[in-house]
Amino acid sequence: MKAMHIEVIAGGKRHCLQAQAGAMLSGCLLDAGLMEGTECGGQGVCGKCAVKVLSGELEPIDETQAVLPDGKVLSCRVRVAGDAVVEIASGQDDVKRKVGLFELCKKGRPEDGPVQKQFVTLAEPTLRDQLSDLERILAKVGKNRKFSHSLLPELPGVLRQARFAVTAVLMEDELIAVEPGDTRDQCYGFIVDIGTTTIAVYLVDLNSGAVLEAEGLANPQRIFGSDVLTRITAAATPESRRKIQKLTVDGIAEAMQRLMRKRDLRAEHAYIATVVGNTTMSHLFLGVDPANLAVAPFIPCHRSRVQLKAKAIGLPMHPEAAVHVLPNISGYVGSDTVGVAMATKFWEQKGVSIAVDIGTNGEIILGFKGRVLACSTAAGPAFEGAHIQQGMRAGEGAIEKVRLDDDKVELGVIGSAPPQGICGSGLIDAVAELLRVGLLDERGKLVQNAPDSPLAKRVRVGARGIGEFVLAYAGELGNENDLVLTQKDIRELQLAKAAIAAGIQVLQSEVKNILAGEPVIDRLYLAGAFGNYLDREKAVALGLFPGIAADKIIPIGNAAAEGAGLCLLSLGQRKMADRISMFVTPVELSARADFNALWIQAMAFPKPAA
Amino acid sequence: MKAMHIEVIAGGKRHCLQAQAGAMLSGCLLDAGLMEGTECGGQGVCGKCAVKVLSGELEPIDETQAVLPDGKVLSCRVRVAGDAVVEIASGQDDVKRKVGLFELCKKGRPEDGPVQKQFVTLAEPTLRDQLSDLERILAKVGKNRKFSHSLLPELPGVLRQARFAVTAVLMEDELIAVEPGDTRDQCYGFIVDIGTTTIAVYLVDLNSGAVLEAEGLANPQRIFGSDVLTRITAAATPESRRKIQKLTVDGIAEAMQRLMRKRDLRAEHAYIATVVGNTTMSHLFLGVDPANLAVAPFIPCHRSRVQLKAKAIGLPMHPEAAVHVLPNISGYVGSDTVGVAMATKFWEQKGVSIAVDIGTNGEIILGFKGRVLACSTAAGPAFEGAHIQQGMRAGEGAIEKVRLDDDKVELGVIGSAPPQGICGSGLIDAVAELLRVGLLDERGKLVQNAPDSPLAKRVRVGARGIGEFVLAYAGELGNENDLVLTQKDIRELQLAKAAIAAGIQVLQSEVKNILAGEPVIDRLYLAGAFGNYLDREKAVALGLFPGIAADKIIPIGNAAAEGAGLCLLSLGQRKMADRISMFVTPVELSARADFNALWIQAMAFPKPAA
Repeated sequence: MKAMHIEVIAGGKRHCLQAQAGAMLSGCLLDAGLMEGTECGGQGVCGKCAVKVLSGELEPIDETQAVLPDGKVLSCRVRVAGDAVVEIASGQDDVKRKVGLFELCKKGRPEDGPVQKQFVTLAEPTLRDQLSDLERILAKVGKNRKFSHSLLPELPGVLRQARFAVTAVLMEDELIAVEPGDTRDQCYGFIVDIGTTTIAVYLVDLNSGAVLEAEGLANPQRIFGSDVLTRITAAATPESRRKIQKLTVDGIAEAMQRLMRKRDLRAEHAYIATVVGNTTMSHLFLGVDPANLAVAPFIPCHRSRVQLKAKAIGLPMHPEAAVHVLPNISGYVGSDTVGVAMATKFWEQKGVSIAVDIGTNGEIILGFKGRVLACSTAAGPAFEGAHIQQGMRAGEGAIEKVRLDDDKVELGVIGSAPPQGICGSGLIDAVAELLRVGLLDERGKLVQNAPDSPLAKRVRVGARGIGEFVLAYAGELGNENDLVLTQKDIRELQLAKAAIAAGIQVLQSEVKNILAGEPVIDRLYLAGAFGNYLDREKAVALGLFPGIAADKIIPIGNAAAEGAGLCLLSLGQRKMADRISMFVTPVELSARADFNALWIQAMAFPKPAA
Repeated sequence: MKAMHIEVIAGGKRHCLQAQAGAMLSGCLLDAGLMEGTECGGQGVCGKCAVKVLSGELEPIDETQAVLPDGKVLSCRVRVAGDAVVEIASGQDDVKRKVGLFELCKKGRPEDGPVQKQFVTLAEPTLRDQLSDLERILAKVGKNRKFSHSLLPELPGVLRQARFAVTAVLMEDELIAVEPGDTRDQCYGFIVDIGTTTIAVYLVDLNSGAVLEAEGLANPQRIFGSDVLTRITAAATPESRRKIQKLTVDGIAEAMQRLMRKRDLRAEHAYIATVVGNTTMSHLFLGVDPANLAVAPFIPCHRSRVQLKAKAIGLPMHPEAAVHVLPNISGYVGSDTVGVAMATKFWEQKGVSIAVDIGTNGEIILGFKGRVLACSTAAGPAFEGAHIQQGMRAGEGAIEKVRLDDDKVELGVIGSAPPQGICGSGLIDAVAELLRVGLLDERGKLVQNAPDSPLAKRVRVGARGIGEFVLAYAGELGNENDLVLTQKDIRELQLAKAAIAAGIQVLQSEVKNILAGEPVIDRLYLAGAFGNYLDREKAVALGLFPGIAADKIIPIGNAAAEGAGLCLLSLGQRKMADRISMFVTPVELSARADFNALWIQAMAFPKPAA
């Protein structure tokens, strides 16, 4: 078949792709990393894959409508038919995004690291000292240690080239490698946090415990849809599971390679990784059939921590490097929640503590009197800017702050580019402000023709008769089109915030039953990058955290990854994670009659303070 | 390049091969398994690869002589140049040979087998019993067991298809597989005995402990030469080591597949293998650099037992099956000797015991008063019919018994074919008989024109002026050519038997030093298939076992494999093997001044009994 030239304009840059005639345009754009994927799994529904066709030929795949009212074309509905030039809709090209670093060793590096390097100088063998090469090393580092057979093939050469001065790499009770010379200063590990939407990979120096580098990437599974249920559906056969696993591992592997290259390090000096994610993500990373997570009684294949070797899964580390997928709590509460509990030392807290990790799923844990409850609630991806008409993730060009001031709309935009869309924190800001100035009622309806507001004219009826608020008119801030927040967007936010709020309330009511009295929440930890940017006052104003004052909210960054990092550096901490996973009581929301009622109740907004 | 047709007549059958023009003929024949390999490593020296060219074109590779005086062509010196028909010299086509079965469990199967299968019926999960699939099984078979991550991907499906009635496969403290239904009756293992010349593979039923099937194959490493030193030289680079390892493993894998097919068994029901061999063979099987085994101070890379998974080395078993390469004793005394010590329970013997395992190397162990000494002596392959002009291995057409009776030569030939050559036991028979009837003197010289013997006319001067004894004239027994035993053949036997005898004497002198007196040998175990066929009286008559009477010699078959089999069935026995490898004192012959003197002395034959 003939290869066609597709020129893609995205994020102000030109990219040239080769594509076979007949290839799906969306596939070409996903493969090239120029698009983040769809929410509908390429069913022509969500509109997230729309592109502007500047020139050339594209062929609709069937009778369904490929062209949107604004003239854009759904790339999941057209095939390449000739050379073409397309422009990607704004907000779709920020595949790589910023992930913040964090501190792991506030009190110095723990002594019980799973990886230890020991430099040894050995006596050279003679006819009177015919000890084998392996035993000669084991005599120095522990006679009864296990050893990996893979270190044997080149051991005789390594020892003699290095004149019997070598570094033994010890993984717990096993000798996994023997390196020539003194390589003690080269000792690295990775933290991998697999979110449904975003994967974060961190490079850690095991000697200092410092997190050196970090990278966020869109979860490559996104091509199968935006939520865990569509992923579970896509993983129905062994072949598809292998494919999804490979996609995920390859994405992580490339991020690892980039991080190592940045610091000019060698893959074989990375000896350990800890992986966290929700239970579905852990299953898919390991290639495990997730089908039963989606149907009652919601049984995971494994709860326990799973240990495997890097070579078994294909990560660019030392072949004998240990990869630990931290334990899950239940089918819906994953190892990421264990990480959050680790990072906050939940079991040491006095009083009643809550931690909320807001992502595509909102995981909530509540600790009191030495007990810990946890649940997971399907917030959907609204907080990550998805399912929002002009939503985007927190990257260059995203509106992250909104203030309505008399007759002005003040927008805080990430980076120096004109605004292109709105991200999660901007969405919460905007809705809270609309509520405050009376352009939104408590049920979440935009108020048309509000009498007293100079901003009332920005509330209008948009396409398909749906109400919308204009954040910025075309050209107002260099933006090409009107940037709007629609009534539908507000409903999405309501669904999401209600899910979190209802989850918190269910856990509170559990405590109430046990304590026989209303619990006083002493603190609420807000995990996830999102928590760092969120305006706490506004989140409270929207009723995201019912019964909790803004000054009790403590943003803690990517606590799931931080907890995973602790397990990278200490066997004791890893054992603690294993214990937490058994100790935390999962609360299954889908099995509760009260959850739905609370969710519907929580859809409304609180009455704004006067 | 054009493919040529090569027709090969071997063992009375026609084989058709495709070969590229320019390919070495010897390579084609080796690849097709029609030739056993050479002793000189394809240097045009040993003549073992000679073929008769019936028609067609073959091109000499260089100026050296490719054509032998009898018109045969050395296949290692000619390239394929067109279609051809060749006939393989007799005795070269018995690649597959008989390996005897043996009994492993005289007193019933041990209870402490490393592999255990447990059939469990599990309660189906409910909303009130959300235990994960893995924990549901572990609750039945041991909560704190390790588990292999590879069983997870399909576990949910396996459990549900089997309605929660499954068989757990336990390898020591690890759950390695979960099989649908009750598969307890399918539980197998392999013994692999890697000899320098022959590899023996045995299929064992782990439930009954019975050895079900066995197969012998020529060691595929033979293409690099016949002894360990040429193999070590060939394994000088990582690439060549990988190649030699692959050749060896592939050969073993094919034998395993054939054995499983014979019994209609599935590869995934084989869970464990134990491998023995001399130290060089163990190194090459594991792909380990053997260079230091060949130079003083003769240091092996590893002495300890090496454990790896079948999937790591590519054997056709369950991917998580354990492959145990039993421990070596020293650079020259390998795990095969540990196997012999295991099979004879050397540490339980009263008095002084010796065991001799005769192969390309002769391993000798001597036990007394709870001590065990061991050495290895380079007998060369004469006992296996190699380095002998008309030598062949003990297969169809091999002369295995010789009796000189007045004026007759009585030959015992294996199978129903006319004699084609002589094997090890026939060689010993023939030489002992020549000695008895006075046609051979004590120094090993054939007596020309012996006055009193009607067989004297069979002693003649052959090609290149070398003396020879005619075992069978052409046509006498349906044989095409004269079958002779040459003066050179007798010298080869003298070298080999002297090596064994001198080794035994060195160990005896060690004991003498310790006991301060000549030891009385209570028994001599003769290991190896060869020992079963050897005429003990004649071996004693030749001085193979100095100071030991024929009635003290006990043939014990393939004891190395038997010892390995014990380790397959019992953790206690495996631990014992580990202990033996540390407990046995290796005696390094090359480091001893007395060994060479004893060797030269032992070349002569004892005075025949009147």
